[in-house]
This record gives sequence, structure tokens and C-alpha cells, in this order.
Amino acid sequence: MNSFSKRHIGPNAAERKEMLDAIGLTSLNELIDKTIPEPIRLNRELNIEDAMTEYEYLNHVQELGNKNKVYKSFIGLGYNETIVPPVILRNVLENPGWYTAYTPYQAEIAQGRLEALLNFQTMIIDLTGMEMANASLLDEATSASEAMIMFYNSRSRSDVKEGKNKFFVAENTFAQTIEVVQGRAKNLGIELVIGNPEQIDLSTGFFGSLVQYPDANGHVLDLQDFIDKAKIQGVQVAVAADLLSLVLLKSPGSMGADVVLGNSQRFGVPMGYGGPHAAFFAAKDEYKRNMPGRIIGVSKDADDNLALRMALQTREQHIKRDKATSNICTAQALLAVMASMYAVYHGPDGLKEIASHVHNLANKTATELKRKGLTLGSKSFFDTVWIKNVPVAKIKILAEEERMNFNCVNDSEITISFGESHTLQDVEKIVGIFQLVLEIKDTTTGSDTTNGASYRSDAILTHPVFNSHHSESKMMRYLKRLENKDLSLVHSMIALGSCTMKLNAAAELMPISNPLFANMHPFAPLDQAAGYHEMFRQLEKDLCECTGFSAVSLQPNSGAQGEYAGLMVIKAYHESRGDLHRNKMIIPSSAHGTNPASAVMAGFEVVVTGCDENGNINIDELQKVAVELKDSLAGLMVTYPSTHGVFEEGIREITTIIHENGGQVYMDGANMNAQVGLTNPGNIGADVCHLNLHKTFAIPHGGGGPGMGPIGVASHLAPFLPSNPFVKTGGVQPIKAISAAPYGSALILLISYGYIKMLGAKGLRESTEIAILNANYIAAKLKGHYDILYTGKNGTVAHEMILDCRDFKKTSEVEVADMAKRLIDFGFHAPTVSFPVAGTLMIEPTESEDKNELDRFIEAMIKIREEIKEIENGHADKENNLLKNAPHTADCIINQNWNYPYTPQEAVYPVSYLKEYKYWVPVRRVDNAYGDRNLICSCPSIENYV
Amino acid sequence: MNSFSKRHIGPNAAERKEMLDAIGLTSLNELIDKTIPEPIRLNRELNIEDAMTEYEYLNHVQELGNKNKVYKSFIGLGYNETIVPPVILRNVLENPGWYTAYTPYQAEIAQGRLEALLNFQTMIIDLTGMEMANASLLDEATSASEAMIMFYNSRSRSDVKEGKNKFFVAENTFAQTIEVVQGRAKNLGIELVIGNPEQIDLSTGFFGSLVQYPDANGHVLDLQDFIDKAKIQGVQVAVAADLLSLVLLKSPGSMGADVVLGNSQRFGVPMGYGGPHAAFFAAKDEYKRNMPGRIIGVSKDADDNLALRMALQTREQHIKRDKATSNICTAQALLAVMASMYAVYHGPDGLKEIASHVHNLANKTATELKRKGLTLGSKSFFDTVWIKNVPVAKIKILAEEERMNFNCVNDSEITISFGESHTLQDVEKIVGIFQLVLEIKDTTTGSDTTNGASYRSDAILTHPVFNSHHSESKMMRYLKRLENKDLSLVHSMIALGSCTMKLNAAAELMPISNPLFANMHPFAPLDQAAGYHEMFRQLEKDLCECTGFSAVSLQPNSGAQGEYAGLMVIKAYHESRGDLHRNKMIIPSSAHGTNPASAVMAGFEVVVTGCDENGNINIDELQKVAVELKDSLAGLMVTYPSTHGVFEEGIREITTIIHENGGQVYMDGANMNAQVGLTNPGNIGADVCHLNLHKTFAIPHGGGGPGMGPIGVASHLAPFLPSNPFVKTGGVQPIKAISAAPYGSALILLISYGYIKMLGAKGLRESTEIAILNANYIAAKLKGHYDILYTGKNGTVAHEMILDCRDFKKTSEVEVADMAKRLIDFGFHAPTVSFPVAGTLMIEPTESEDKNELDRFIEAMIKIREEIKEIENGHADKENNLLKNAPHTADCIINQNWNYPYTPQEAVYPVSYLKEYKYWVPVRRVDNAYGDRNLICSCPSIENYV
Repeated sequence: MNSFSKRHIGPNAAERKEMLDAIGLTSLNELIDKTIPEPIRLNRELNIEDAMTEYEYLNHVQELGNKNKVYKSFIGLGYNETIVPPVILRNVLENPGWYTAYTPYQAEIAQGRLEALLNFQTMIIDLTGMEMANASLLDEATSASEAMIMFYNSRSRSDVKEGKNKFFVAENTFAQTIEVVQGRAKNLGIELVIGNPEQIDLSTGFFGSLVQYPDANGHVLDLQDFIDKAKIQGVQVAVAADLLSLVLLKSPGSMGADVVLGNSQRFGVPMGYGGPHAAFFAAKDEYKRNMPGRIIGVSKDADDNLALRMALQTREQHIKRDKATSNICTAQALLAVMASMYAVYHGPDGLKEIASHVHNLANKTATELKRKGLTLGSKSFFDTVWIKNVPVAKIKILAEEERMNFNCVNDSEITISFGESHTLQDVEKIVGIFQLVLEIKDTTTGSDTTNGASYRSDAILTHPVFNSHHSESKMMRYLKRLENKDLSLVHSMIALGSCTMKLNAAAELMPISNPLFANMHPFAPLDQAAGYHEMFRQLEKDLCECTGFSAVSLQPNSGAQGEYAGLMVIKAYHESRGDLHRNKMIIPSSAHGTNPASAVMAGFEVVVTGCDENGNINIDELQKVAVELKDSLAGLMVTYPSTHGVFEEGIREITTIIHENGGQVYMDGANMNAQVGLTNPGNIGADVCHLNLHKTFAIPHGGGGPGMGPIGVASHLAPFLPSNPFVKTGGVQPIKAISAAPYGSALILLISYGYIKMLGAKGLRESTEIAILNANYIAAKLKGHYDILYTGKNGTVAHEMILDCRDFKKTSEVEVADMAKRLIDFGFHAPTVSFPVAGTLMIEPTESEDKNELDRFIEAMIKIREEIKEIENGHADKENNLLKNAPHTADCIINQNWNYPYTPQEAVYPVSYLKEYKYWVPVRRVDNAYGDRNLICSCPSIENYV
Repeated sequence: MNSFSKRHIGPNAAERKEMLDAIGLTSLNELIDKTIPEPIRLNRELNIEDAMTEYEYLNHVQELGNKNKVYKSFIGLGYNETIVPPVILRNVLENPGWYTAYTPYQAEIAQGRLEALLNFQTMIIDLTGMEMANASLLDEATSASEAMIMFYNSRSRSDVKEGKNKFFVAENTFAQTIEVVQGRAKNLGIELVIGNPEQIDLSTGFFGSLVQYPDANGHVLDLQDFIDKAKIQGVQVAVAADLLSLVLLKSPGSMGADVVLGNSQRFGVPMGYGGPHAAFFAAKDEYKRNMPGRIIGVSKDADDNLALRMALQTREQHIKRDKATSNICTAQALLAVMASMYAVYHGPDGLKEIASHVHNLANKTATELKRKGLTLGSKSFFDTVWIKNVPVAKIKILAEEERMNFNCVNDSEITISFGESHTLQDVEKIVGIFQLVLEIKDTTTGSDTTNGASYRSDAILTHPVFNSHHSESKMMRYLKRLENKDLSLVHSMIALGSCTMKLNAAAELMPISNPLFANMHPFAPLDQAAGYHEMFRQLEKDLCECTGFSAVSLQPNSGAQGEYAGLMVIKAYHESRGDLHRNKMIIPSSAHGTNPASAVMAGFEVVVTGCDENGNINIDELQKVAVELKDSLAGLMVTYPSTHGVFEEGIREITTIIHENGGQVYMDGANMNAQVGLTNPGNIGADVCHLNLHKTFAIPHGGGGPGMGPIGVASHLAPFLPSNPFVKTGGVQPIKAISAAPYGSALILLISYGYIKMLGAKGLRESTEIAILNANYIAAKLKGHYDILYTGKNGTVAHEMILDCRDFKKTSEVEVADMAKRLIDFGFHAPTVSFPVAGTLMIEPTESEDKNELDRFIEAMIKIREEIKEIENGHADKENNLLKNAPHTADCIINQNWNYPYTPQEAVYPVSYLKEYKYWVPVRRVDNAYGDRNLICSCPSIENYV
């Protein structure tokens, strides 16, 4: 009764029959048999527990949560207690209108979240004192690595000539940051020097540096001093900063820093046992074309109205491939939205109040402890008190009895870091603990101290957006206004090939609001996180079963991170066997641009091989290349089913060729949703793969992140899975940490866990089958209207298909971008545009769409084809037509003299279902080039909006 | 830090200053001094605890919840375990787009919820087998009373002549229903006869009857038999039915019932310790003009498109006043939406699965227990097993050890009622308990029995809406599509005079989703509800402090119920003193229509007194009437500040006159939000008042309910506060129960509790002050454009004001309805139309709106006044103008040849802020008369939609 798979999967039995009829088949089995090569079929049900109902799952996950012990966290180290404003929790994090949106590639239908992300950039620019900021990165540790790499690639000609390859890292940088940076540095030939920033001599060989502000022990370094020293030597400076501290402390930008980065978590995003949170990355203007991550910029639309879009796309990995300087795709959009809205809601005064509150608690604690004769490690601090010469073990026991966690630096030093939710009562308790352990009499006294940190005096967050929405009514309306500008899964299907916009069920999402999961620090003692670890073990087991592998690492916090992690594991494997020379990675030309970018990040040389006329990997060519590279072959990166939407018949042959030539096979898990329960990476001969949990396993896209990219590996690679400096994870010879947190964005692993638990073996398989059915149904119905570029040997597609639209350019001057924009008039998000083949559309319906929704989409696509025909046969003008002028706003009809050669009705009501419900796009086509030429990446002044 | 009052209250310090400047005052104190008469001022801070922050409150309420013990409930009696589908929980109950909407009086901006409520009616009509249904009533017990009263008022002439006044109630009707009906019957001179429906002789004096189906012990009566017997005697039959049972059992309608009523709670609405839930009420077509409650009907708009609206308004209390046959105002709209969506989501097959599941559990239990030699009370049952001759006390102990609650009928009988969330494991546990207590050997056997209930064979819920949205993606989109048709507080301020649309904060709403509160049965043992009761005690104490009274009853579940309860308390007081003749209730002509309707329901005769030219009660007239009625005077009903938006100076004089003549003063609490912290009902001399928690104390309006209407009383009235047959509440000589549940809609009391806890004494007072400031600011800014009808002696208004628009009819033929519809084009909900004075608008801004939002509204009102001037001065046509043609849809511009004498821009973008964000109304002006002439109250066939 009430099985979740009925809710997750769109078509019911009757619809499935109709759809099979349309394809010309009699059963789902027949379709699968025709689509997936027999040799790699699983032919058994997955060994995964029977499905729970939603009700059972929600009870189960509450019981899991009850196994976590959520103590007050004073651990700090990049993660702090914060209060999520209820209005933001309810209207953003718990609202499918925000969390089901896709990455804003189609800017016209993403103006709401683009505005929120522009606010984020503005906030970061203001607080860091920098000129530019991106719209978030994955976490602080990877941001630090990105800074190092950006600096490395930005070296002056003379520095390159001199071979400057040393990067300084302050020793009191967060340990997780140091470890991630270490891992990255090695691949690129960068020499890390870890030391004391006050003593380091930067005069020889250094191109860059990283300091933490305040540092891991809470000490606020004299940043001006360090930056001056670095600048004299021409050394670039990145500052890893605490965002809340920047509300009060002098900004690194004002002191000359080149990059400022950090975690925005404590701006109203729960700790979530490590994530997801939005890392920030701000830089001087001169770095803008080398900056990693997404940048939101201001531009204008076809009617000259202000409009936003992602800027400078050409510098990203999906364009630059192995020339890219970063493999970052996903941002942490949803979390960046939350953090920016926290600033919008509190405003500069509210933020100052909060920052002063934590600063005062730290000052008060320091004063009290000093009065009682304790030794403090620093006189300049923001929120963290560093106490020396104390019996740490004893204090830890007492603190835990009070349900408090401190950070134990070593056997005799402790730091205590305050957050928004802490109180003076907490200070009293803390002081009491020290008194009790040290048997200090209450009468002990001492003198007050003055905090030695340098405070800022400039105005922050002066833009009206940070000074207008401070009542809840205003805030709610602002959030709703932005939400309602955007098109998301709450409106219609989003048939993005390779991106899998399946249902993000409410029951999967609800547990992430549960404080028993949300409010846990990633470095809390393990015994306090028993509920989390039970979930991890189950999830690892189930993901192993789905992939046919023997071990999983949950650490990589995006698909690109997963690729990087998998490649690093391959590298470690080769090195462990003494195969130090294996540094060539074969990547077929059809691969996603992230593949070559990740390979380069991991220190491999990329060798591209081609495809045959059917879009499949050219096996002869591959064989030839593999044999040629026999001694240096590290491996192959392959996507399966292919990015062309086909289960290639030769996959076993391909993986065998690689293995025979000493390589390892990395399978890109982007299309894993076409495999689950029917075949698996192990079956096709892969050694490692990543899993896009935000695609196959139902984590929502959040308007451009968060994602999660765990990797699965065969047993011979298991020893190399990554660890973490605080929490041991991974194998016995682990590679360096990939992400800051031990289990990546642990909080959202609950979503994938729920997805698996509520579907069970049968539902998982059925989801895959129906994803394939839905794709083939669309293919069948579009036949005669569009050509499908590639199919399998029996004429079927996998879970997605490529529509060949290249001819339209010649026959009618219509480009795929025009079709994408025209779909907006029909209330649909465009399929994937020009990937993997330029001039095509790649459609992936997912299993969550029912026949009725597929038919609506099909009707739109056929109507658009008819509109193209009108141009082809000369009835419509080649420049001035429904497609070139799309999308059409209500305003363009109402506010202008309508002088297009078609009626308003044809423009905005091309099909009848739009009469019942119409999504009104807020802007017309956005001019990307204009925005890139006139780059503005922070909120424009109000006059510009009018 | 982070005080909630900053979030709840709109204007900040700077704005307050600007606003006071505009009014011409220098301080808030000055404004209050000018507005509230000195003699009644409180002049001290309320004795209410300091405010908690939102964070502190959410932690506090979680701790309260932890004090509740949520056992599995098998109690039944009208409340059953159900599973709220997560997609409905998240997208309706937790979504301000749904819960902040107002009652759909402005149909054009309420098409989404009107459709959902029409679905509710359709579902009820289908399942009950009746011809008509309304859009919900308050609870099953009051619905039963309404049926009795409707029958009484529908007696044939001959029945009236014969003086038929007996109403039969089956003895196994729920005890709470019987008690509520008893209370109501007495006032109207109806004689209740309670007996066995199989034995009762209906031949003399009966006009109507009520039977329960299945009854309180779970027995399914042979309804056909009873109805046939009643019909022969011309006795009208109401059936109180279990909605889920009707999925399987023969419908009462098919057997000839005149009315079918009941609770829709188990259609996916949590028990919430008693409510809120939507009661249903279905009847034969012949009752349609006497039917209580709101009825949604199908009509058309000005462009002949299908459009919905509330039908047959003229039969409601606000029109008919003391001629009304019901005092019902509020429905349980939000809960009716949830219940209807439960049916939309599950569809007929899903509902049958759920009904069969509970039926099977009951059958299984019955069979097992019978096999073990136990005696069952009935052979025909749906979900409830009735077990006789068992040691109830022992069984209760064991059941509670298993965290299960049964219903103990008496010392030797138990009933066990199953719900959607129960399982076969529960059945095993239950059987095990009986085995253990009765020391039955496992080997005991007996024969299977066949359930004697009659099943239905007709198709149910065949309309497409119940057969289309069964996947979560579809359901989510349907909910969002309806939501986005409607205008609510998420769009803009709703300045409804007398209705108080203040902020419904997320932190106030979040706890009602907490299972520790949501999943508790109202008749669970008291010790399991300690968290609830702690909350009740606090809330009662704080409401006493706010009102200046000494006791509070939380039972009345709407304002009208509060009125009725208060009047019944007055009546009981008089009776206790032997004053049986005191039956005249004075009500000023300015009173809300509910006042006289409630007075009549309570058995009083209404005497209307007039107002003077300033809108105040004519004290001379009152004095005269009171003295005249000296010996029969029961009391006065008075609203304060008056419905005219003024603190009448003579209020103390008025209450003294009443007291001197032996009467009691009932204060209508509608405008209590202008008093809190500044004065109170006790201070003005009232003896009792109700509090609209859904107005003053922040419970959202839910699109037309739920509401809550607790009453406060002076000490001499405290003994008479109402009780409940299962849970003792109220005074020592309690009046009969007012509502089915002991604490009314207990779940949402949490919202008001949170409101008080997070504002504290200071925030409560400040809210009142700013509500008055905001009103006076609007009044000041509209001066010169509109006349304010009434002001206090110093020229100020209270928290609301009446704009006199009566002249416009003469000068331009513009009516207030035209202005209301024109405001929709500006993105605003209209103020209250033609109440309390026909041809006027009553504006109430609330404290939650900031200056910016007030200014937007003011700009709209001034612009509309200019548009009226254009007609007045002949520049615009009297019939064909912006106001008469309002509202304007996007379609009316796009789909038609625009031939209005103004531009589309003037129609839809009359002010510049609409360029930034425009709410597009989905239909044009709805034709009410057409719909009433062609009454359709269930979903029209799909063809009609096209």
C-alpha cells in the first residue's frame, strides 16, 4: 500500500502500455533487451532491502536521528553554530520552488536565483573588500586549492622563467585545508612550504601564499605585515577568512590581499556534519578571466531591460576542457542563496550585532579565564579563545557531560569558538568547567585585557537590497518574488540530457531540516554521530551494490570532485605498484569537458580518441592508441551509456583493451541512472566511477548546487580511498583529502539514502526501466519531425537522445539557442543545448514524468518544428520570427506597439494548454556578449534597475 | 539580539518618525494618547514574560513537545490516525502561499483555492451520495447541530402547525456530538430524544433525527431500515458518517438520507489533539438555500470564461443577521484543501486500498479475538472492533505499556479503531494483550465470521481531477498551479478592515508540523498530553492578562463559536441567579452580522439600537432601551474599538448602563488587536469577550479558516465555562460543550502561544501601537483624496478606518466593488467592502506592514481616485472605464482585439512598481448572479473547462 515508487515514477500501467504501443513494442522487457547489450546485463534483482513507504521511512530516519547526540559546538575550525532564520528555512531550503531549479544556464527563466546569487557576490565583495567574487565554490579547502592554482597560472613571465613554484601555507591554517591543498599541489609540481607567517622568508621561489584570518587557533594575524612582506617579494596572497569576522575586522582587501576565500556557512546555513555550504572566493579584478567557478553578471535583454546571467562562460571547464585551470562545474547555489538572504534579512546592523555578540562572548571568556590565572595563546582574536597549559583530557570529559564540544588542539591546549546561538550562560558553564578541573577558587582575580585585533571602520552592505527586507513580511515577499520569476520542476518537466531532473520527493527532503542531523559539527566525536554513521554504512553498502564495486568514498562533494578523487586513486594505485610513469589518460572526444579538466588537475596528460559515425568510441583507434601508450597508459575515462545516449555494444572490449595495456578504467557516472538495477560499472569492466547523487540519486539541483560525487572502486583500489585529518575515512593507504569534510556534504546524503530506502531493489530497477521507456517514447513520437542523431543497434536510445538540429541553421537560420528560448514561451526549460554535439538538443525525460507531461513536451517540440518549417518554406521571415524573437514577455505585448509579423497569441499561446496555466518569463532574450564586454558582477545601483 | 518584534512589526525607527511627521505628531505616545480615552488606558506593561527569540522559542516548543507522549491511537470516536502525504504537508500546510490567503470573497484572486474547495465538495458529494455539499464546517458536533437546526427551520407548514419539535439522536452517537447538540437544542425549544435507532418510535412529534454510521462502538447500523422508518413518518434524517468508511460502505445518500455530515480529518489531516479539521456537510438539493456554511459554485467571468466563487452569499449570517439560521462564518478551508488533495493524490483506487487496509485490520482482529473466545459487540463494522466482557482496567495498563491507547467504553467494554498508519504487527500486539490478560492459550480456535456491513458497488470519484495527479511531480505541480493563481500575503499587504491580516511568522507555524503535537488524539489520557496542557495553562494565563479577565476557555473553534459560547455563559449566569426572564440582547446597528445571528442561536431576542452621526453608539437611546428592558435585559454585545474604527469615548458609560439594568456586557473581540497592552475588555467594563486568535494572535486565515475563538470571562462567569464529556475543562457548573474537542483546534493554539512568547509584553504593546500608527498614517496620506467616515474626538482613527466612497456612485457610477476589483490590477487585495457601512471601504493595515508597503498601497488608492475623477470630469466613460472593466487579465489584452477607450498599459501597469513584479489575475470579473441562477457546486466536466 502507498508504495513510494508509484509516486516517484510517472507513468502508470495503462500509460506504459500506450507508450510501448507507440514505440511498437509489447513489453518493457523487450525494450530493455533491445537497448542494453546482453553480455553486460545484471539479470538479477539488486541485493537491496525492500522498499519502505514514505511513512515508514520518515519514522526510520527520525530513529536514526535520535542516535545522534547534538551537543553545543565550540569546535570552530571553519564550522560554527548559526541560526537559520525561519523565514529562510521555510521559504528557501524547504521550498521546491527554490530547490528544484536547475543551474541558470537559461538566464531568462532564472532571474530570481541570479539576483540572489548576485546579492551573494555583492555581499562577499563588500565584506572581503575585494573587487570581484564568484557565486560560490564547494568548500573552503578546495577554494584554497583553487587560489593556489589560479596564482600558479597567473605567474608573471619572469616568475615562470625563474621556475618559481613554491607556495607558502601558514601552519595554523585549518588542517583539512592544508591536506586538500597538499594533494592538489603535488599534481601540478607545486612545492608547498608550511610555516609560521610571521617568520617565513618569502624571498626565494615563492609565487603565492595562503594565510588563515583568524587562524585555526583563533589568533588574528597582523595581516598588513604579512601582505607587505609578500608584496615586496611579488608573492601573491590568498587569505582564508571567517566571513562573520570580516563584519568587524579590517578587510583583507583593504590590506592588499589578492584573493580572499572561506566558508559562508555561519551565515545561516546549518553545519550538517560538514555540508553543504557555499564557499566564497573573491579576488582582485585582474584575476577575473582566471577565476574558478561561476560568476553572475549584469547585462540587458532584447528590450534593453536589465537582466542577469552567468558571465564569462568561455573560461569554464565545459568550454576549455584540458586547457581549463579548474574542473569546477557545480556551485553551492542553494546555500549561497541562503547565506546571501541571511545578510539581506539581517542587514549591516543585524550582522554587526551578531558578530559583536560572538566577539563579546569570546572576550568575556578570555577575560574570565585570564582572571582565574589561565594562559591564553593569543591577545588578538575574534570568536575563539585559545587556552594553553590545561589538562585537556579532563576538561573534555566535563565538557561532554555538559553536552559541549571544545576543540582539543593537543594534550595541553584547547580552543573554544563561539557562534550565534551561544549565550552568556554558556560562558559561565565553560568558565565553571575550567574552575572545577583546575580547582580554582572563585576569588581569583586579574586585570581586563584589550583585544588586539584591528577593526574595520568602513561601511558595509550599503546597497538597498541589504537595507530593505528586515521585517519577515518583506523578506517572505522578496523570496517569493524571486522564486516566482523562475521556472523549476514545480512548473514543468526539465528534460535536460546528462543532467537528470527527476523528482526530488518531499519525504526525501524533509529530514535535512531535522536539527538532529542539521546541527552537527563535522569533527564532533564519532560516538555522538552514531545515526549519521549508520546511514553512511548503509548507503555505502547500497551504492556498492548499485555499482558492483567493493568500496565507496562518500567524501567528494561534487561530480567533478568525484572525478578528481577517482583519478587520484588510480594514480596512487599505479604508484603503489611502482608504475610512476603511467601518466596518460585516454578520453574520447565525446566526453564531458569536465573529464579532461579533472585529468589535468590530477596531473595526467590527456590523449583524445575519436568516435565512429554512429557516435560510438572508435575501438580500432582506441586499440591503436592504447598499445602505443602501453608503458605510460594510466587509464581511460569513459561515460556509460555514452554521452550520445547509447549503450555502446563494445564497452567490454574497450575496458579489456585498457586493462590489457596496463590502464585502469574510470567510468563517469553521469548516466548511471540508465544502469541502476540493469547493469553496473563493475559489469562493464570499470575499476572506479563517481556517482552524481544529485542526478541519479535524487538530490535536487538547488538552482546550481549542491551536488555530491561519491566514488565507488573495485577492491584493488579500495586501499587508496581518501581520508581526513580529523576523522579517519577511506582506505589503509589513503590519498590526501579531497574535500574539507570527512563525508563531504553529509547532510544531503540523507536524500539519496531516502531515495534508495523508499524505492528498494525493485523500485530502483523500475526507475531505470521507465527512464529508458520515457526516452524511447519521446524518440518515437518525434520521429518524422526530428532526426535522432544516434541510436543503439536495435534502433532504441538509452535514457536520453540527441535531436539533430544542425540543418535548421542552413534551411532557416534557426539555431538551437533559438529553439531553447522558444521553448520558454511554451513553459518549458530547454533540453541540453549543443552538448555533446554542437547544434543539437539532448533530451532526457527521467522516469518521474508521466505520459501527459511527455505529451505536452512533445506537442511543444512538434509545434516548434512547424514554426521552423514556416521559415523554411518562406512563410515566415528568417530574422524576424517566433524563434528569433523568443522568449516573449507579457510586457513586450502590452508595453510596445506590437509590430512583429505574427500575432501576440501565436507568440505566447502557441498551444492550448497554455490557456490553463502560463508561466510568464520576466525578461526577453539576454544579451550575453554585452554583459561580458561590460562586466558588472555586483548589484547595480537602484537607478540601473529602473 | 534578533528580537522577533523587529521581524513581526514592519516600520523601523526611521520610518516611524517619517510616518509620525506625516500625521503631524511628534511621538507614538502622543498618537496613542489622542486615540485611546484616558479612563480606560492600562498605563502599565502587561504581566507577560519577556520575549523569547525565534531560536529560543523553537527550542522551548520542542521541549514542550517532548513532554507529550504520542502513543498509537486506537481510540477512534471521530479522530483516527492518518498519514499526511509529504507532498501535501510541504506544499500546502507548510506553504505560506496557501496558508496566508484570506477567505475567497474576492473570487478573481482566489481561483486556486476555490478549485481546491470545489474538489472538496465534489469528493463529499460523491462519497456521501448526496446532491450538494458545502466547503466545510467547524467540526462534526457543530455540523450535527447545524443539521438539526436546518431541519427545524425546514419543517413543513403542517409540521410547524402541529408543533413538531422532537429531534431523535441515536444513543451511540459520539458523546461529544450529543452534548453539543443538546446545548444547541435547548435554546431553540427543540426536545431531544436520545435512544436506540432500531427501537425508537418516530410516530409522534419528531421533525428530524440523527444517527451515526458507523456508530461510536463501530457498529454499522442497518441505515436503510432506519431511513425507511423515518421517511414513513416524514422525519428528516441526518447521518453522521465516517468519510473513509463511505469509500467501502453503501452511501447514506443512496439510502435516502437528507443530510450526511462528519469529519474529514482522516483524509490526511493530523489529529492535532482535536483539530483543526474540516467537517463536511452534504444535503439533498432541496436544502440548498438553508444550508449552513460556505458553498463554492461555478460561474463565468466577464469574458465568459469559467470561473468559481462562493455561491448563495445572501443566505449567510453577514447578510441575514438575526434572521440567519446559522452563525457560521469561518470554514476550515485549509484543512478542506488538504483533505480534498488527499483524495486527488490517492484517487479512487488509492482510497479503496486505504479503506480496505483499515477494514481488513479490523476484520483480522475481530476474527482472532473471536477465535480466542472473546465476545464481540457487533457483527457489522468498518474499522472498529467492539469487545465485551473484558477487564478493561487491566487491558488499559498493558496497552499503555505497549504505547497503545484503546477506547474504554465502560468497565467491561473496549473498542479498538484502526487507522491508515496501523499494521498487522499492531493487530498481533493487540491480540497478544488480550491473550495475556485473559490467560488464553494460543491454541484456542473458533470459526471465521463474515462482516455484516453492506458495501457499495457504485463508482466513486470518477472526475478527472481525482484520476490525474497520482505521481508526486504531478501533484506538486497541481498544487503550485493553484497556489500561483491566488493572491496572498506572500504577494502584498491585505488591508482588510476587521479581519487583521498580520504576519503569520514561520517560527509560529513550524511547530504545528511536529509529530509530537500533530499526532495526538484529543481523548488520549491526560498524562500523555503534559506538553499540551502546559501550553494551555500558559496561554490561558496570558490571554487573561491581555483581556483583564480571570478565566479563559480555549474550546470555541471560531469567532462565531466564541460569541455563542460567551452568550451561553451569560445565559447560564442569569439562570444560576434565577433570572430566567433575562432574554433580551441589545446589539448596536453597527455590529457585525454574526452578533445578532449568534444571539438568536443562543436563544436571545435581539434589540437593535442606533448610532449617532459620528458613528458612535447613541448613548441616550441605549439608556432608554436598557431602562425599558430592565427586567428582561440579558446584556449588550459591543465591539471595541467599534466596527467604525474608533475608540468610543462613552464605552465606560455604556457598560455601566447595562450593568445598572441587570445586563452583562459581551465584547466582540474582533478589534482586540487595537487594545492589547494599551487597554482591555475588563477595563472597559465587559464581562466576557471572545478572541479571534486568527486575527489578533497571528493564526493564519488559511484561505478561509481555520480560526479559533477562545473566550475570556470575569470571575463571576468563570464557573460556567464549557466542559467536554471526555476531558473535563471549564468551570464548576459548565455549560454544555461548544465544540467537539475539549480545547477546540488545539494544534493551532501553538501559533498564538508562539506569537505571545516571542513578542512578550513589550512586543505585544508595540504591535498594537504600530497597528494604530499604520492606520493613522494611511488616513493622513489619503486625506484630500478620500473622506474618512469616522474618527475619534481628536481626529485620529484606531487601527482601521472607513473610506467614504458613497458619493462616487452619484458622481461617476463607480461602486466600491469596482474599486475592489480595480485594486487587483494593482496587485492588491481589496479592503473590506461595504462593511460596516454600505458603499464604503474599511482599511486595516496591521503592524506587520512597513512604510514602503503602505506607500505602495496609498499610491494605488490615490491613483484609483484619479481614475474616478476622470469619469467625474467626463474624460472617461461611465460604463466603459478602467474600474468597471477591472480586473484585467493578460489574456484580455493578448487574446482579444483591444477596444477599450484606454491603453493596455493603463489597464495593467497603472503604477511603476508593477513593472518590477506583477501579479497576473487568472480570470476577469466573476458574475455572481449568473452562478447563483445556474447553481453548480461540484467539479464541472472537463469540456466545460475548455
